[in-house]
Amino acid sequence: SSTSTPITATLFPGDGIGPEIAESVKQIFREAEVPIEWEEHYVGEQIDPRTQSFLTWESLESVRRNKVGLKGPMATPIGKGHRSLNLTLRKELNLYANVRPCYSLPGYKTRYDDVDLITIRENTEGEYSGLEHQVVRGVVESLKIITRQASLRVAEYAFHYAKAHGRERVSAIHKANIMQKTDGLFLKCCREVAEKYPDIKYEEVVIDNCCMMLVKNPALFDVLVMPNLYGDIISDLCAGLIGGLGLTPSCNIGEGGIALAEAVHGSAPDIAGKNLANPTALLLSAVTMLRHLELHDKADRIQDAILKTIAEGKYRTADLGGKSTTTDFTQAICDHL
Amino acid sequence: SSTSTPITATLFPGDGIGPEIAESVKQIFREAEVPIEWEEHYVGEQIDPRTQSFLTWESLESVRRNKVGLKGPMATPIGKGHRSLNLTLRKELNLYANVRPCYSLPGYKTRYDDVDLITIRENTEGEYSGLEHQVVRGVVESLKIITRQASLRVAEYAFHYAKAHGRERVSAIHKANIMQKTDGLFLKCCREVAEKYPDIKYEEVVIDNCCMMLVKNPALFDVLVMPNLYGDIISDLCAGLIGGLGLTPSCNIGEGGIALAEAVHGSAPDIAGKNLANPTALLLSAVTMLRHLELHDKADRIQDAILKTIAEGKYRTADLGGKSTTTDFTQAICDHL
Ligand SMILES: CC(C)[C@H](C(=O)O)[C@@H](O)C(=O)O
Ligand SMILES: CC(C)[C@H](C(=O)O)[C@@H](O)C(=O)O
Repeated sequence: SSTSTPITATLFPGDGIGPEIAESVKQIFREAEVPIEWEEHYVGEQIDPRTQSFLTWESLESVRRNKVGLKGPMATPIGKGHRSLNLTLRKELNLYANVRPCYSLPGYKTRYDDVDLITIRENTEGEYSGLEHQVVRGVVESLKIITRQASLRVAEYAFHYAKAHGRERVSAIHKANIMQKTDGLFLKCCREVAEKYPDIKYEEVVIDNCCMMLVKNPALFDVLVMPNLYGDIISDLCAGLIGGLGLTPSCNIGEGGIALAEAVHGSAPDIAGKNLANPTALLLSAVTMLRHLELHDKADRIQDAILKTIAEGKYRTADLGGKSTTTDFTQAICDHL
Repeated sequence: SSTSTPITATLFPGDGIGPEIAESVKQIFREAEVPIEWEEHYVGEQIDPRTQSFLTWESLESVRRNKVGLKGPMATPIGKGHRSLNLTLRKELNLYANVRPCYSLPGYKTRYDDVDLITIRENTEGEYSGLEHQVVRGVVESLKIITRQASLRVAEYAFHYAKAHGRERVSAIHKANIMQKTDGLFLKCCREVAEKYPDIKYEEVVIDNCCMMLVKNPALFDVLVMPNLYGDIISDLCAGLIGGLGLTPSCNIGEGGIALAEAVHGSAPDIAGKNLANPTALLLSAVTMLRHLELHDKADRIQDAILKTIAEGKYRTADLGGKSTTTDFTQAICDHL
């Protein structure tokens, strides 16, 4: 990736507050002279038979071509015969790792001020297999699938990430004392990869104990890697420690080097179009996208401006206890660039 | 249950610090004139073929006969060919609900001072089915089993508990957006039971969101009911909010009215026999046993004395930052009775 010719990136503004917060990203990127050109795609109004969902084939092709994208919240339309938009994206683009940096925001007070960890979630299998059936009346079962291939892949990504970002330790989260075969295989793969990274410490933590330790002392953790459902749970728990999903970036890594950054909060239809939304999660997600592109200068500059604006506290949106509009908050960030 | 003739209860002191903290319970119960006679059982030194575990058949018969018991920590001996002691107890005694009251202890400071909730965990099925296999090399699966019978049973218990303890709301925790059949059946059963309790509010919360809300604002919750693994995770998370497993009581409810209270922390072999262990979790578990027996006066008196001793802070064991021995802490509680 070069900084001289612009990079084309796909942008899904999404629904509800999505377009407003996407506008905020675009403005800040322009102001910071980030060499990115956006290719915008919206969720379709009808099911595209080629994706079996409201996502258009063209929008998926755009991500596949650009290999990099940013996604706002998408509300899955209610009704039958189609798949959830988020799950469709993960499946179609083979987004195998969900990476969420989670750190206390200076000046934004929660019960914790010492959070600085990364959750890396396997994003394609496990409890999300979709394989379920009724055995007899009143008895149902769901299948949790763990494969060596997907476990190695996400473990590789976790250690690679830890090394590239100067992190010291990777903790594999599991319940192998109960699910000896599935979580056992996951751990075995993590151990294999760990051996290739002698400089990174490796440990295994049972999920129940992990959650207890996270709420007692999150500073105990650095990089966490885990199967799908545990990642779903723990990444949200960690977001809660620092203030919620409105403040936490997320980036999905796919086969072939795809990176799709996304705000994981909802589309907040109640405040949509009212210039009240907090764009922080989407902005910080856009920053992770820049880091993926190794545009670290731009990433640092934008991240600093966001954190400074929040720390000062003069311009904060209502969800953070302030009175700012989305556009005033965005302008304040631009002024800090 | 009457208070005139003594009630016989089974006591498993357990391993490690178990005997010391059990001694603390016995002393306080004597001092408070609790009409209970203990029938003590220890974990065997050999596998009992009738239980396939180190638990003796006689000890299980004792719980079955007395229908009430108290259990200290038991370290499952390492080796093959036998089952975990905790899982054996759950299975053999059909302990279908694990109930953990979790409340902030006055005067013992954590990041939270407003926790007052009850987690009720289905304890027999779900992800703990033990059904796992390799499909092909590198592909393994675990089965999560949910039945109508076990879901109704734990839901009944949760609503019954909520009503009996003057609680306002039951939240069913699930991931039915992903596991539509298994968690969907669990929710369906909760809804059916909820209809029979029009005075108790009922809500459904997705587990990832639940964990985020718990760390942001645990006061949002009252009684939580959930499938096995979610209960394992959330009950430990909640214990973390108020200081850890050393402070949280637990009680298992089985078919036929069995109640087996237990300290869920480990056996701490490093400090065993040194008069340093904190008996609080076992003591508060013993209190839940008294409540189950409807010996509320004794329960209140003992619970008050424990909480007062901790609140005063003069006698605290090392895990709570103090310098007391187990026996001094126990004596202080006796003095508060
Ligand atoms: C909406 C839901 C299907 C999704 C998930 O469970 O993965 C969400 O919780 C997330 O973490 O992206
Ligand atoms: C030790 C382990 C098998 C057990 C469980 O997972 O149920 C423990 O975590 C618990 O909560 O009692």
